[in-house]
Amino acid sequence: MATASNGIQKLIEVGTKIVAVGRNYAAHAKELGNAVPKEPVLFLKPTSSYLENGGTIEVPHPLDSLHHEVELAVVIGQKARDVPETTAMDYVAGYALALDMTAREIQASAKSAGLPWTVAKGQDTFTPISSVLPKSAVPDPDNLELWLKVDGEIRQKGSTKDTIFKIPYLISHISSIMTLFEGDVILTGTPQGVGPVKVGQKITAGITGLLDVHFDVEKRRRPGSI
Amino acid sequence: MATASNGIQKLIEVGTKIVAVGRNYAAHAKELGNAVPKEPVLFLKPTSSYLENGGTIEVPHPLDSLHHEVELAVVIGQKARDVPETTAMDYVAGYALALDMTAREIQASAKSAGLPWTVAKGQDTFTPISSVLPKSAVPDPDNLELWLKVDGEIRQKGSTKDTIFKIPYLISHISSIMTLFEGDVILTGTPQGVGPVKVGQKITAGITGLLDVHFDVEKRRRPGSI
Ligand SMILES: [Mg+2]
Ligand SMILES: [Mg+2]
Ligand SMILES: [Mg+2]
Repeated sequence: MATASNGIQKLIEVGTKIVAVGRNYAAHAKELGNAVPKEPVLFLKPTSSYLENGGTIEVPHPLDSLHHEVELAVVIGQKARDVPETTAMDYVAGYALALDMTAREIQASAKSAGLPWTVAKGQDTFTPISSVLPKSAVPDPDNLELWLKVDGEIRQKGSTKDTIFKIPYLISHISSIMTLFEGDVILTGTPQGVGPVKVGQKITAGITGLLDVHFDVEKRRRPGSI
Repeated sequence: MATASNGIQKLIEVGTKIVAVGRNYAAHAKELGNAVPKEPVLFLKPTSSYLENGGTIEVPHPLDSLHHEVELAVVIGQKARDVPETTAMDYVAGYALALDMTAREIQASAKSAGLPWTVAKGQDTFTPISSVLPKSAVPDPDNLELWLKVDGEIRQKGSTKDTIFKIPYLISHISSIMTLFEGDVILTGTPQGVGPVKVGQKITAGITGLLDVHFDVEKRRRPGSI
């Protein structure tokens, strides 16, 4: 791999946070029975939840499935605070494809109890992610087709042109709330078609024409169990 | 400052996350009208929310106050995954005093809408924190008095002996959900007495006999405003 490419791969290793946007595609908000939001729904995922391409997504006990959410990830290239929309794209280093894996039952009980989504969204292996494409390789991030298959069967296909909040707005808005650092990642939401993936199944996903990834789904093995 | 001491101060700079525990003192759970939880309520704060001792807590527009929550912070010294309670304390490098500043109105509407607490808890300057005390300086972390004053008037005083979930349990539980890295911080919850601190007021807080901190509270200045 070239040095420039290695440099950009290293970026997410130096990052300290993943800021995820919920309900950024109207059709997905509706499929979960949620209102289309007036401002972005934001939540945090820890960087400990990253999983490299080819890895195994672990389903924690006592669940036997997780929901898949395929999302465009925006990788921040430099410290961003109170960035206006007009210059927001200067803070983007590149893009990746990520899965925002979700324990939907845990999220549902958290939501009804008014509690955070951290356990539903933040466990190890819950953010599978591709290699990072430099910004120059993605001339139009608002017109990318994202797709996801489970065992070869298409489950999600959508275009980033259907997002409610566009990337410059998200960077401007998030950076008005919290400083974004080099290597931080914004997950821009998922198109419709989310659903369960079970232990023993395989996920493939991609950005049409640019890259694809694959992950196995297995039961989480606790230390001491075999 | 000695080199050892500098080393431990650097720890939270290399950390990637703050895992905060909600409702870990029964009296505080009750004062907000919440049930005492059966397992810890967990949420994430970004490291971009840290504020060093002596700094200014910024109240974002259009609020004119934030709630103070004084908490014992546990600083992790090495990577921890699936750690049993019996060895959990080996993963602690030290302790600090932190404030989990909270935009209570934003949190209240998030809770009633089933939404994350990220905007209510995660803004820049929302995690003021003291210097880090090495573990050796704190022989009994389960018997520390925490206090907080606003403009010299006592608002919170409580002992870590009244926590529901103790530090070894928290490390074991959290590390079963997500890997903790060197420099990550656990905020262990707040005793009763939380309440608003207004723009123009001053906070002092401390761990009796060990350290104290002070912070100003001001309106957040956006770029371009004076
Ligand atoms: Mg959260
Ligand atoms: Mg998502
Ligand atoms: Mg708190």
